[in-house]
Amino acid sequence: MNKSYWIWYPGDFELYHAMVQNFSRVERGFGWPAFWKSEGFRNRVVFRRKMALDTETSFVVYSKAVGYVLADGRKYPFGETVVCGPGQVEISVHAGRIDAFPSVYIKGEVICSDRSWQAEDYANAPVAAGYSPYFTEEGQDPAVWEYSEKVYLPVKTEPCGDGVLYEFETELTAALEIKDRAGGRPIRVYCGESREEALDPVHCYYSWEPDPGTGRCPRCAVRFAYIPGHREGEIGVKAIHQFVDIPVRASFSCSDSLVNEIWSVAAHTFRLCSGIFFIDGIKRDKWIWGGDAYQSFFVNQYLMADREINRRTLLALRGNDPMTTHINTILDYTLYWILGVKIHQEAYGDTEFLEQIYPKMCSLMDFCGTQLEEHGFIVGRPGDWIFIDWADLDKDGPLCAEQMLLAACYRAMAEVSRCLGKVEAGEEYRGRYGRIKENINTFYWDEDQGAYIDSFTSGRKHVSRHANIFAILFDIADDGQKERIVAEVLCNDEVPPITTPYFKFYEMDALCRMGRLDEVFARIREYWGGMLQRGAVTFWEEYDPAVPEAEQYDMYGDKFGKSLCHAWSASPIYLLAKYFVGLTVTDAEKGTYEIHPHLEYFDSLECTLPVGDKDVHVVWDGGDLKIKNFDR
Amino acid sequence: MNKSYWIWYPGDFELYHAMVQNFSRVERGFGWPAFWKSEGFRNRVVFRRKMALDTETSFVVYSKAVGYVLADGRKYPFGETVVCGPGQVEISVHAGRIDAFPSVYIKGEVICSDRSWQAEDYANAPVAAGYSPYFTEEGQDPAVWEYSEKVYLPVKTEPCGDGVLYEFETELTAALEIKDRAGGRPIRVYCGESREEALDPVHCYYSWEPDPGTGRCPRCAVRFAYIPGHREGEIGVKAIHQFVDIPVRASFSCSDSLVNEIWSVAAHTFRLCSGIFFIDGIKRDKWIWGGDAYQSFFVNQYLMADREINRRTLLALRGNDPMTTHINTILDYTLYWILGVKIHQEAYGDTEFLEQIYPKMCSLMDFCGTQLEEHGFIVGRPGDWIFIDWADLDKDGPLCAEQMLLAACYRAMAEVSRCLGKVEAGEEYRGRYGRIKENINTFYWDEDQGAYIDSFTSGRKHVSRHANIFAILFDIADDGQKERIVAEVLCNDEVPPITTPYFKFYEMDALCRMGRLDEVFARIREYWGGMLQRGAVTFWEEYDPAVPEAEQYDMYGDKFGKSLCHAWSASPIYLLAKYFVGLTVTDAEKGTYEIHPHLEYFDSLECTLPVGDKDVHVVWDGGDLKIKNFDR
Repeated sequence: MNKSYWIWYPGDFELYHAMVQNFSRVERGFGWPAFWKSEGFRNRVVFRRKMALDTETSFVVYSKAVGYVLADGRKYPFGETVVCGPGQVEISVHAGRIDAFPSVYIKGEVICSDRSWQAEDYANAPVAAGYSPYFTEEGQDPAVWEYSEKVYLPVKTEPCGDGVLYEFETELTAALEIKDRAGGRPIRVYCGESREEALDPVHCYYSWEPDPGTGRCPRCAVRFAYIPGHREGEIGVKAIHQFVDIPVRASFSCSDSLVNEIWSVAAHTFRLCSGIFFIDGIKRDKWIWGGDAYQSFFVNQYLMADREINRRTLLALRGNDPMTTHINTILDYTLYWILGVKIHQEAYGDTEFLEQIYPKMCSLMDFCGTQLEEHGFIVGRPGDWIFIDWADLDKDGPLCAEQMLLAACYRAMAEVSRCLGKVEAGEEYRGRYGRIKENINTFYWDEDQGAYIDSFTSGRKHVSRHANIFAILFDIADDGQKERIVAEVLCNDEVPPITTPYFKFYEMDALCRMGRLDEVFARIREYWGGMLQRGAVTFWEEYDPAVPEAEQYDMYGDKFGKSLCHAWSASPIYLLAKYFVGLTVTDAEKGTYEIHPHLEYFDSLECTLPVGDKDVHVVWDGGDLKIKNFDR
Repeated sequence: MNKSYWIWYPGDFELYHAMVQNFSRVERGFGWPAFWKSEGFRNRVVFRRKMALDTETSFVVYSKAVGYVLADGRKYPFGETVVCGPGQVEISVHAGRIDAFPSVYIKGEVICSDRSWQAEDYANAPVAAGYSPYFTEEGQDPAVWEYSEKVYLPVKTEPCGDGVLYEFETELTAALEIKDRAGGRPIRVYCGESREEALDPVHCYYSWEPDPGTGRCPRCAVRFAYIPGHREGEIGVKAIHQFVDIPVRASFSCSDSLVNEIWSVAAHTFRLCSGIFFIDGIKRDKWIWGGDAYQSFFVNQYLMADREINRRTLLALRGNDPMTTHINTILDYTLYWILGVKIHQEAYGDTEFLEQIYPKMCSLMDFCGTQLEEHGFIVGRPGDWIFIDWADLDKDGPLCAEQMLLAACYRAMAEVSRCLGKVEAGEEYRGRYGRIKENINTFYWDEDQGAYIDSFTSGRKHVSRHANIFAILFDIADDGQKERIVAEVLCNDEVPPITTPYFKFYEMDALCRMGRLDEVFARIREYWGGMLQRGAVTFWEEYDPAVPEAEQYDMYGDKFGKSLCHAWSASPIYLLAKYFVGLTVTDAEKGTYEIHPHLEYFDSLECTLPVGDKDVHVVWDGGDLKIKNFDR
C-alpha cells in the first residue's frame, strides 16, 4: 500500500485555517476578525493523474465535497470502488465544497493520493496538489485541525472574595472543563494570563459560561481561572491544553542558571505561539502577522527546525494571485515575506516548496514594482501602512528602511532565482539590487552624521536606528559605514532608543553581527531576566523595568491589554544559538554548518541544535570542546 | 421604524447561492459540480455609515458572523443594544464568516440597515452594500434561501410490477415525503420527468432513500415517482413543491386554443426554471449558463417582469474582478452578459443596478480586449470555448458570429455609458463599434453568396445561418444585406438548418424582425404543438418530430438524458408578446411603450403584459381594440 495523503489545491488548506485563526480573536465578549483582506480558498477543483497500469487495479476516493471520479471515461460516486486498467489510464477527481476547501483522499494499492497528483482550479495551469503530513488517514477532514491534548489540574486553589481562584503550573491554550458538583447555580469563569486579570471580571479578556452539556469552555489563553459565587468543594476545574505537537529538537544548558531559565521560558513561549501557524500571541491578537512570523522563522530554525509550520505560515500570509493589497496591509510585511522564504530555504533546503512558491514571489515583486518612484524607491499607496516600528520616523517621501528591505528582497530574489536555475531572472534581480543599493547610498547616506537618514525629501535629515540597523543586517553599508553606524547610531544615546521588543530583535542581531556580544549578553540577562523577576512564566509582548508592578500588564491604554506570551520575545533562543553557540547552517540539504562558539561567556555548556535533518551536539566542560552530529 | 434589510458586500449573496445552485446537480448517485471557475464570496467585510443625530438613539446589530459594532469609538458585541448620539456619529460593523458570506441586520428607529450603507472588503474602494427584498427580517439568514412550498398529492396511483407508480398533475421541483404505513421494509423511490424514466431504476436520474426520521427525500425534478416492492396501501406519498414565488404578471388568451396551451405550458416551464437564478433545466444541468440566461431575460420581460432575478443572475454569472476566465468558459457567453445588462436596462430602467455593475462591464470588456487580433477581431485563448451553437461552423481564425456579438457589445457599452453620463467612454465604444462593423463587412461579407461567411482565414467561405441571424438581430447588415440574407440563407434549404431550440430562438427572432410572422406563427404551432401532442406538460430541451416516441427522451447518448423542462423552450412567450401582440417598451422608467398588434393571427385576443411598473391590458373582440394601462 502506497502512502496516501489528503490532497487539495495548494494553499487552500493554509488559507482556510488562516481564516479560522484570524477570526478567532475574542475580546470581552465580541469577536474581532483581523482587519485585512481575507484571502479565500477555492471551492471547485479537479485532481488529475495519468498512469500506465500493468494489471487491473482498484481504488476508492473519500471526500466531504460534492463530486465524482472520472476513470477511463466513466463516472463513479465517492466511496465506491473504482476498477481500472490494465493499460494507460486517465483519472480525474472532481470536487466542489462551499463551507471549506475541497479535499480528497484516494486509497488503493497502486492508485492512491500520493504526491504525484496535479490540481486545477479552472483558472490557472495545473500545479502539484497540496498535502500535509498531519492528514494521512481516510477518516480525517482536513478542514478540522486535530489538536494534541494534555490535561492540567490546578496546582493551586485559593478562596478569593466569594469565589475560588485556580492557578495552573504555567500558561496554557486550554479549554477549561468545569464540573459543577453542587449543581444549580449559574457558573461563569474568568480567565487571566495573570492573577490580577482573572480577578478583574470587568477588564479580563476572556470569560465564559461553560457548555451546559459538557462543562467545556472555548479554548483560550489561561494561567489563572476565577469562579465567583462558589466555594472550593463545589466546583471541579481542569484545563485541557490543546496544542500542535511540534517536537523541540534543541536543548540548552550552561553554567549560567539565569540564561538557562531564559532559554527555557523562551522555548515555552515560542511553542505556545507555534500552532497551525506562527501567531503573535496566544491571548492577543492570535493573528498571523508577517513581521512577527518573520522573526519566528529565525527562532524556529534553532529550536524546532520545523519546516511545515514555516510552509503553512508563508502560504497563509501570501494569499492568492493577483496580489492587490499588502500582507496585513503593511508594506514592510510584504517585503519580509520574500526574506522569509529565503530564510526558510537556507534553513531547510526546501526546494520542493521553493518551486511551488516561486511564482508567487515573482508576482509579489511585480506588485511592489507598481509602487516605485523615479529612483526605484518604493512608496506607499493610499491605505498602505508604512510601519517599520512604533517610533518617530520621518515618513516624508520614500522611507529609507523600506528601501533597505526592498534591496534585501532583490538580493533574495537573485539568489532564489539562481538556485532554481532561472538565470535570466536572477541577473535581472541582481541588477536591480545593485542599482537600488547605489541609490540608497546616494540619497540616504549622510557622511556628516555617519548614518542613513529616514527621508531625503523632507530636508530634516532625521536619523533613527531602524534604517541603520537594516543597513548592517542587509549589507547595504560597507565595512566603514557599518563601523560609523555602530559608533554614531547604535552606541549613541542621543539617537532615540528602540522601544519595542520587536525591533530590539533586529538591533541585537545587528549588534551581534558587529561583534558586540558583551552588550547583547548583558541585555539578554537584564531584559528577559527582569521579566522572570516579575514572575513571568512566558515572555511578554513588552517590558519596561521603569513601570511599577501595578501597571505592568497595561498596554494600548487597556489594563490587561499586554500579551504575556508573545512570540517575538523568544528571540534569546536565536541569539544564543547563532552567536554564542555560534552555529550557522551552510548547506541545509547536505547538513553542513560552521560553528564558532564563544565559550568565554560560559564556564560549561551542553546543547543540541538542529541542522537540516541532523542534530549537532555541543559539549564543553570548561576544557575540552566536543562536537558531534547525530542523524535523526 | 425604518425599513431594514440584511446587507452584505454586493454580489456575495449571488456568488454564494450560485455555488449552491451550480453544485446541486446530481446524476445517478453522484454530485456533478459545474466545471468552470467557482467565483468565491468575501469572508471579511465592514459596513460603514456616518450620520448626524438630533437626539440619542439606539440600535441592535444581528449577524451569524464573527464581529463587532464600532460606534463612536466604542466596541459592542452583536445582539447588544448600542446607544449613540446626539451629534455626528460614525458607525462601522465588522464581520467575518467562513462557511458563507458575512451579512448583518441592523434594527433601530433611526439607525437601521437601510440602503444607505457602504461595504468594504479591504481590497477595493467602498461600494453600496448589497441587499435583497427577500431578506428583511432579523430572524433570517441570507445564506439560507427560504423557498415557498406547495403540497401536491398524486393525481394517479397505479400498481406497476411489484410496486406502485405515482403521477403528479405536472412536473415539480419537489421534496417527496414518503410515509411508510406498513413499516419495516426499506424504501427506495425512483423519480422521473416521464413515466418511462421513473419505471427504469437503472437509467433514471434521481432515486432516493427517504430520510428515516422525516421520510423526506432531497428536492429534485419529479412528475412520476415509482416505489418498487410495496403495495398501494402501504405507502403514502406527497410532493412538497419548493419554488421561488415570482408572480406572473402576464396573461394571454386568444381564439386559438393550441396557442393558448403553448403559452400556458411555456409559462409553467419558465417558472420552474426561474428559481433564485435563471437555470437551464430543473432536472439537468440545474446550472446557471450565460447563454440560456440571456434568452430568459427576454421571456422574463414579457411574463414576470421580475427585475430581481435578472439582477441575481447577472451578478452570479459575472463573478469577481479581475476577470480571468470566460463565463461558463465560453467566449460567446461572456459577450451575451453585456447584452444581457443592456436588455435588463431597457426592460426595467434599473439605473441603480447599472451604476453598480458598470465597472464590471468595463473590466469584462478590458478582459476581452486582451484577446483581439490585428483587425480588432476577438479570438479564443487555449482553453476558451468558442461555442455559438452545436453546429458545423468553420472555426478557423476569428469566427464571424463572435465578432457580431463583440460589435453588439461595443454598441451596448456605448449606449450604457452615455446613459450613465460617461460621455468619453461612450464615444470610445461608439468608435470601436463603427470600426469593427466596418471590418466585419470587409472581411466576412460575401457579395456572391449574399451572406456572411464563418471564417475569412480558411478560404472555405462556409456559410452558416448563425452569423447571418446575428447580422439581422444586431444590425450589422444594412437593409439590402438583410433582405439578401433572408433570401439566400434563412429561406435557403441548402444552408444547413438550425437544429437546437437554443439557436432557433435567435432565428425566429430574426425572422420576426424581417416581418416573416406567418412562418414563425406556423413554426410555433408545429414545433411546440408537436411536444404537446406527445404529452408534454413542460417544454423540452429539444424536440425532433422525426424521432420515434420510444427514443424521444434520449439525448447525449443517454436514455433519459434529455431535460423535459428547459427554459430556452419558453420562447413562444417572448415571440407572441413582442411580435404578435406587438408590444415594445420604449422607456421603462416612464412606462411608455409602442404597440403594433398583428390581429390578423387571431379572431379574438385578451392579454395583459407588463411594462415597467404598469400592466398593459389588450382586448380585441374581433371588432374593437381596447388598450388600457393599470398601475400595479
